Amino acid sequence: MRYNPKNPFWFNRDRFVLSAGHGCMLQYALLHLAGYDSVKEEDLKQFRQWGSKTPGHPENFETIGIEVTTGPLGQGIANAVGLALAEKHLAARFNKPDSEIVDHYTYVILGDGCQMEGIANEACSLAGHWGLGKLIAFYDDNHISIDGDTEIAFTESVDKRFEALGWHVIWVKNGNTGYDEIRAAIEEAKKVKDKPTMIKVTTTIGFGSPNKSNSYSVHGAALGAKEVEATRKNLGWPYEPFHVPEEVEKHWSRHVPEGAALEAEWNAKFAEYKSKYPTEAAELKSIIEGEFPAGWEKALPTYTPESPGDATRNLSQTCLNALAPVVPGLLGGSADLASSNMTLLKSFGDFQKDTPEERNVRFGVREHGMGAICNGIALHSPGFVPYCATFFVFTDYMRGAIRISALSLARVIYVMTHDSIGLGEDGPTHQPIEHLASFRAMPNILMMRPADGNETAGSYRVAVLKKQTPSILALSRQKLPNLPGTSIEGVEKGGYTITDNSTGNKPDVILIGTGSELEIAAKAGDELRKAGKAVRVVSFVCWELFEEQSDEYKESVLPAAVTARVSIEAGSTFGWEKIVGSKGKAIGIDRFGASAPAGRIYKEYGITVEAVIEAANSVS
Amino acid sequence: MRYNPKNPFWFNRDRFVLSAGHGCMLQYALLHLAGYDSVKEEDLKQFRQWGSKTPGHPENFETIGIEVTTGPLGQGIANAVGLALAEKHLAARFNKPDSEIVDHYTYVILGDGCQMEGIANEACSLAGHWGLGKLIAFYDDNHISIDGDTEIAFTESVDKRFEALGWHVIWVKNGNTGYDEIRAAIEEAKKVKDKPTMIKVTTTIGFGSPNKSNSYSVHGAALGAKEVEATRKNLGWPYEPFHVPEEVEKHWSRHVPEGAALEAEWNAKFAEYKSKYPTEAAELKSIIEGEFPAGWEKALPTYTPESPGDATRNLSQTCLNALAPVVPGLLGGSADLASSNMTLLKSFGDFQKDTPEERNVRFGVREHGMGAICNGIALHSPGFVPYCATFFVFTDYMRGAIRISALSLARVIYVMTHDSIGLGEDGPTHQPIEHLASFRAMPNILMMRPADGNETAGSYRVAVLKKQTPSILALSRQKLPNLPGTSIEGVEKGGYTITDNSTGNKPDVILIGTGSELEIAAKAGDELRKAGKAVRVVSFVCWELFEEQSDEYKESVLPAAVTARVSIEAGSTFGWEKIVGSKGKAIGIDRFGASAPAGRIYKEYGITVEAVIEAANSVS
Repeated sequence: MRYNPKNPFWFNRDRFVLSAGHGCMLQYALLHLAGYDSVKEEDLKQFRQWGSKTPGHPENFETIGIEVTTGPLGQGIANAVGLALAEKHLAARFNKPDSEIVDHYTYVILGDGCQMEGIANEACSLAGHWGLGKLIAFYDDNHISIDGDTEIAFTESVDKRFEALGWHVIWVKNGNTGYDEIRAAIEEAKKVKDKPTMIKVTTTIGFGSPNKSNSYSVHGAALGAKEVEATRKNLGWPYEPFHVPEEVEKHWSRHVPEGAALEAEWNAKFAEYKSKYPTEAAELKSIIEGEFPAGWEKALPTYTPESPGDATRNLSQTCLNALAPVVPGLLGGSADLASSNMTLLKSFGDFQKDTPEERNVRFGVREHGMGAICNGIALHSPGFVPYCATFFVFTDYMRGAIRISALSLARVIYVMTHDSIGLGEDGPTHQPIEHLASFRAMPNILMMRPADGNETAGSYRVAVLKKQTPSILALSRQKLPNLPGTSIEGVEKGGYTITDNSTGNKPDVILIGTGSELEIAAKAGDELRKAGKAVRVVSFVCWELFEEQSDEYKESVLPAAVTARVSIEAGSTFGWEKIVGSKGKAIGIDRFGASAPAGRIYKEYGITVEAVIEAANSVS
Repeated sequence: MRYNPKNPFWFNRDRFVLSAGHGCMLQYALLHLAGYDSVKEEDLKQFRQWGSKTPGHPENFETIGIEVTTGPLGQGIANAVGLALAEKHLAARFNKPDSEIVDHYTYVILGDGCQMEGIANEACSLAGHWGLGKLIAFYDDNHISIDGDTEIAFTESVDKRFEALGWHVIWVKNGNTGYDEIRAAIEEAKKVKDKPTMIKVTTTIGFGSPNKSNSYSVHGAALGAKEVEATRKNLGWPYEPFHVPEEVEKHWSRHVPEGAALEAEWNAKFAEYKSKYPTEAAELKSIIEGEFPAGWEKALPTYTPESPGDATRNLSQTCLNALAPVVPGLLGGSADLASSNMTLLKSFGDFQKDTPEERNVRFGVREHGMGAICNGIALHSPGFVPYCATFFVFTDYMRGAIRISALSLARVIYVMTHDSIGLGEDGPTHQPIEHLASFRAMPNILMMRPADGNETAGSYRVAVLKKQTPSILALSRQKLPNLPGTSIEGVEKGGYTITDNSTGNKPDVILIGTGSELEIAAKAGDELRKAGKAVRVVSFVCWELFEEQSDEYKESVLPAAVTARVSIEAGSTFGWEKIVGSKGKAIGIDRFGASAPAGRIYKEYGITVEAVIEAANSVS
């Protein structure tokens, strides 16, 4: 079957995105007509019902044929930029003069609402910069949004803005019935190969409805039985609900045999490609299927306490560079902070308009667009491992896209450096406080805060292995030592003991740290042991992974009988009661940061070895 | 003194914003030269040090003369749009043909980084739409951002984009030394009264530095002693560090007497205005000084259990409309969801280009810009109470601005409706899960989730009273009953008992709910009492306010001895361990939502009376 996602050919299909769930019912209907098994007539009838394949906004994880999850406005157009980037990259990297093995378009429909969102401008500015010639956007210019006529809030010239962004712009004046105009516009768009094209299609919302067309009342609400009847009459549509007239069925059903022919042709082409270019074919297959060469994890570095200390952002760069050769689908970059986030892949150049085969992506200062573009890349093919980076605090700028990664099972790696007051002088606007807690509360995302080299490598290992879960790595700006007891395997458990001088699973006190504060916990542990205490020091690098462990394992790390627990983390204490219990103590920061050298802020805020010792003595 | 924020004249000053802390040292130096007591020479020397008035990014709450907190890119230009909106609104509302009591410009400098951010495009599109003629933006076109030449990620035509957004655009080609060109551009900008103006000023970053100018190395790092010396030489600047030459001092010191003259003039004008237009003068004074008419709180409605049930989003609209006449500075609106968020002030029209005296603001689908514009309005004058609205889940789109509200002590009211799976069919992209937790972890913001009419009114009372704290109101789409025991006064405590049949502060079990789930807790309480239990039902409408209460009060609501506690909230359970303790049970949702009728999702997710009863029986 053509529409089999396990079929390699599937990856070379054109992509079609309805930004913001624009006309979701239309999309379901088209999938149905085109022969997708995923949307049968009964599915259409279950629109927006519990357990249906036709939810209120299209979601890639619910319905085969839905490329991306686009409910929130502006995500879809940015996803489409990511899909088109993926195609341009793969085509440049794998096509040969005698074999164009990658070749498809990305289509997207977006409305006035999407056009107003900043994320759309960010992504479209990049699409113009990158010259994504095979991206074709239809702007449904119907002049109506939820609050009524767009005149009340949206009077800019969208055409001119897109021209300024480097797009080719076409205007179809009669979008309601001007089919030939639309066809001609698509042909013209395909001929413009160095720029993305926006086809502004002026339409009437609710076209055909005699009393409700051109009004906001048709935006999110059903027409109602009476108006449906009037509309059918007005459009001359005499058929029963859900009946597909023979003529229409015939027209659409040709897609299945046509697809089968295309598939056979592509399969033959790929077989030939494979025999001529085995190395490239293997890499491409890895990206298409999402399987990496056996033993790829061995590429990750390991460290001992004797290894020189380093900032985890630097250790992260070592990991990225170690992974790039063994994970062919790894590509990404930063929102104008590559030299701070340490994200450059040293063996590769920049993905640019004329060098799209390269793997360093320069996103500019466009965090939200960056996240959504990475979602598009991740969902293009299961072997893509896109990563993107900024300062951890600026996840606030891209949270809309990060949540969609989590919801839509998109493996994006968020490389988030400068993860605490430890960044120092840039001050409170740049210092995350509540961010760790805020992501620990989000479903289906791994919030990892490695403490040193081994934990950074372990975090990358998990991030790549978790195929349907995005990860955030919170990384330090400042240098950290490699601690005794940390390990790649430990990270997999989420929380684990790094040092312990107790016996019988009965320490006097358990000290728990994450990231840069694990060092503080370890030092306090040393001091307390000198004073005769039995102390366990636990790294709590990823709460979500610890939560997945067996009760036995959890008890072995945090025995219920030991209520003397102290946690330390340079962030909000919100949520830590779960770990330290009502008799324990959470040391953290429940106010905003400050501009000063990092050491001074740590001291003033009480994130110190002394504070841990004092707390440990008070609880044990 | 002119520069006294307690002086009414102060409010009519021109506003000057450096977006993203652009040239923060320059701003401190200018404040110093202009005679601001807030920045003395020793403050300049303490740049980026603990406790200084000159932090790494300028912050309004640290330094008098800094209008807004602009560290994160793009916030400043959007704040400036808010400041200019405030001026246009006040001028239209209060100026009389014989007295122009409000009349000032808003200036902003922004760089390439700000221009790339989506928030900047959102805010600038609105500025063009509103025709903010007294907003003058200088675009520091230096072609360098942190990653190097902007050519790598930013090749759009900014001029053309701004023209498309409805701005007047001027290009100053020699921004390094073309002082006359710059002066002429400002004069031209002032003459264009129906459009904001962007003056593109092409400059060389690090101008004057012989070896580092025009390079990213001068972006965030100091030049170093050697290069400073070379630069001084190159620019012919023979003075000692921090020495202000007499000629410069003379030039700048005139601002103090000139300001005093302007102040005297304005004071006389205002005295005359007051005698002629006492009503308007009183309203304007309220906005300037932030004091509301005595007894304003009485305008808020109260309810009894017999009052008809309603969605809290509708009750919110009742409160907004009740407050508008007694809080003259209340104005705001929604990001294209006014009829869903229920934010329209019925006695007022739309703030638009030609009707700027009105108080309903139409933000379009621009959440991030909306939040930052409201920050600008709030920080324009202490009596402004801007509110803005979208679906609660889309706080993800505007979290950057919300955090700046909290950090910069800006009283913005965030009206966030559709606050849970209770919104039903729109599905998981629209259903908040982790959002309550994520804001409870953020410093200096009140996360309020009222359960009914009294609690909605109480939430508004607190939101208006807390002059230096923004508030988020999470409001239901669905109808809720007015519950026995809720009160405006209760909300002030954050958590309080609504019903209780126990004696001696020893209930068998405490049931805790928020918002739409307080009804479920109350019903479960009734059932458990029928079965003979002593049950306390507690509303936990605002964690932050409860945290502020005395230990005695806390103990009276949640006695330490009563460990049998059950919480219910249609959101993440993250953080609830603190309230229910390790022996209690938190009922909530730790996965994404679903598209279906709301009742069905509640049932499938176990957010039910039966679940509370079962949990209560298991813990007590």
